[in-house]
Amino acid sequence: MKPTPYDILEKIRRQKPVVHHLTNWVTIYDCAQIVKTLGGSPVMAHAPEEVAEMTQIASALVLNLGTLTVEFVEAMKLAAAAANRRVIPVVLDACGVGATRFRDANCLELLEVAHMDIIKGNASEIARLAGETAFTKGVDAGEVKGNIARLAQGLARQRKALVVVTGETDIVTDGKQTWRVQNGHPLMTRVVGTGCMASSVIGAFAAVEPNLALAAASGLACYEIAAELAAEEAPSPASFKVKLFDCLYTLDRATVEARLQMERNEDPE
Amino acid sequence: MKPTPYDILEKIRRQKPVVHHLTNWVTIYDCAQIVKTLGGSPVMAHAPEEVAEMTQIASALVLNLGTLTVEFVEAMKLAAAAANRRVIPVVLDACGVGATRFRDANCLELLEVAHMDIIKGNASEIARLAGETAFTKGVDAGEVKGNIARLAQGLARQRKALVVVTGETDIVTDGKQTWRVQNGHPLMTRVVGTGCMASSVIGAFAAVEPNLALAAASGLACYEIAAELAAEEAPSPASFKVKLFDCLYTLDRATVEARLQMERNEDPE
Amino acid sequence: MKPTPYDILEKIRRQKPVVHHLTNWVTIYDCAQIVKTLGGSPVMAHAPEEVAEMTQIASALVLNLGTLTVEFVEAMKLAAAAANRRVIPVVLDACGVGATRFRDANCLELLEVAHMDIIKGNASEIARLAGETAFTKGVDAGEVKGNIARLAQGLARQRKALVVVTGETDIVTDGKQTWRVQNGHPLMTRVVGTGCMASSVIGAFAAVEPNLALAAASGLACYEIAAELAAEEAPSPASFKVKLFDCLYTLDRATVEARLQMERNEDPE
Repeated sequence: MKPTPYDILEKIRRQKPVVHHLTNWVTIYDCAQIVKTLGGSPVMAHAPEEVAEMTQIASALVLNLGTLTVEFVEAMKLAAAAANRRVIPVVLDACGVGATRFRDANCLELLEVAHMDIIKGNASEIARLAGETAFTKGVDAGEVKGNIARLAQGLARQRKALVVVTGETDIVTDGKQTWRVQNGHPLMTRVVGTGCMASSVIGAFAAVEPNLALAAASGLACYEIAAELAAEEAPSPASFKVKLFDCLYTLDRATVEARLQMERNEDPE
Repeated sequence: MKPTPYDILEKIRRQKPVVHHLTNWVTIYDCAQIVKTLGGSPVMAHAPEEVAEMTQIASALVLNLGTLTVEFVEAMKLAAAAANRRVIPVVLDACGVGATRFRDANCLELLEVAHMDIIKGNASEIARLAGETAFTKGVDAGEVKGNIARLAQGLARQRKALVVVTGETDIVTDGKQTWRVQNGHPLMTRVVGTGCMASSVIGAFAAVEPNLALAAASGLACYEIAAELAAEEAPSPASFKVKLFDCLYTLDRATVEARLQMERNEDPE
Repeated sequence: MKPTPYDILEKIRRQKPVVHHLTNWVTIYDCAQIVKTLGGSPVMAHAPEEVAEMTQIASALVLNLGTLTVEFVEAMKLAAAAANRRVIPVVLDACGVGATRFRDANCLELLEVAHMDIIKGNASEIARLAGETAFTKGVDAGEVKGNIARLAQGLARQRKALVVVTGETDIVTDGKQTWRVQNGHPLMTRVVGTGCMASSVIGAFAAVEPNLALAAASGLACYEIAAELAAEEAPSPASFKVKLFDCLYTLDRATVEARLQMERNEDPE
């Protein structure tokens, strides 16, 4: 029997997996703290001399393009290659893709030189990677023409990867099946870093659950249920963010089961 | 008729301008979050290959010297040149100028190679840029001999820029007229990043209001009124900071009008 | 008569020492804010062109290996040399040593080229520096064989430095005498950055108190008493962290005296 989202969360709390990040300088603290809040052990190391060795002790690798530079992408390649060799899941957060050609080119190059098990972005970032001319407003999602679920499914097939699109309804697809998660709260869009933290959450869930689609959808659901609880206690962004961490830390099985809005469907061809 | 400070805040909430930052690694999250809290869309990108292109989609550019390096200043030059070409406002936060010769030299070089529409600092940073021998205690203001308003007015005329000096009374001057903002609370000095966030606030207001003096004074007033409200609810720095974001997010017209302490005077020759 | 921990805290509040950091990008804000909360003046500058000059105006230097790179370690060497020349205390946080050979090698090199007055780490980091084969789980402490107090005492004698091991019981030893601090709360282990902040606290106390063992033990005691107070008010990590800063800011003499759990013993040979 498949584990439930809460089963996977319990496994993180029990196993305390190391989740290695090469991420951006804006939300790096929050990415670490969300993994620690889940019960995992975050590590952020980016020197090219050590990224491969650090990846050896990790159970998942999270890459985030938020404040990329040429040197940083080179370090990402080394880390991703090490993760691929060890067959641990790699999550790529395509943060800001669709905003500049430099981001697009670096993200595409990363996808060429290493296998990204999970590609995550907002609608315009994923549309851009799927070959559309979508425009990302810095790091905030822009308008997307066309059906984002279909675009994500196509990208998943093309890259043989799981594709995650965060938004009001999150889409998680491997190109054959698509999970949709309806949990969450609009206040998440008013807090810098909720998208980056989502990738770290997915990394922590994928570190302990080999069914990556189930891991990603479950992680998003738990994280977003915590956001729902937080929004009930705190109506403004900064106190909401504090509560989001607190509610995720104390999340229990009954609450997750009562609030879970996660469904799976077969993809059209 | 000139817009009021709250009118400009509403315009930010409505237009959601992109504010591009090249800022320091200490307060980068807070700079992003304060812009998002105002209703804007922050982006932090510093790779030389993309700063100019990212600036293309921005309505204002904020440069902050807090953790400068030679490479970072080179990226700032590229971003500032792109902003100058597009005629969008550039805010320079002279963070730490007066503490080391390296900071002084880099800041002066930036002022030579690009036009900074708004130069912002604390008293000793601005005094230093005005040619005084003022000493900055790391990033905290040091003693200043002489009249800081006169020094700021002189610097504004010399650089053909708006000069902003933050302190108990904020000074905003173009060398012809000087605005003074008396809002704020002493707890702001106990929280790391309140100065950096002030520059981001000014950037967001300048992104939507072409009268830069009015934009800067209005931004400081709204931000500092939120600080007054926060201090009434939270007497210690960390909870005060959470409340500061929350109060800025929910700031309304009646509160701003009731508390506004902003006045304008003609400068002496 | 020796000052009490609270006496030293009062001295920080009165003297407002500048504490210069070259630290990691994950917890850099918290390191700055904890120093400011104590009453000090934090500065974070890492450009090789200015680190020595910035160190001139500082009363202590804190180095943290969390997100080290080759270039960053070179800047640390320059800062440490300047601090050694001025005979101001240098605190080295051996963050992540024992996780990769790169960290081990760089930390050992720093210990060779400059004098570190205080070497601080968790149990596996300090065991590794003492020559054991201890393994650090990223930046979280791993298992240590052998008596960590004895290992720390040996390292202190070898390096002629004060060695600080944080944990449920903190150990502070110069190889002749060992202080033990029993204050603190388990929630500290659920918050990213509590270890890094401990080093910054030690730096601030060492900036004003020449007895470095007393300074370090006192700093840890005050910080951890604030954590105890915070945990009574907030049972979850994110709100606990906010309260930790608040409680440290308002810490008073009576509370410190009532809760202090700090003792000193002569070391065995």
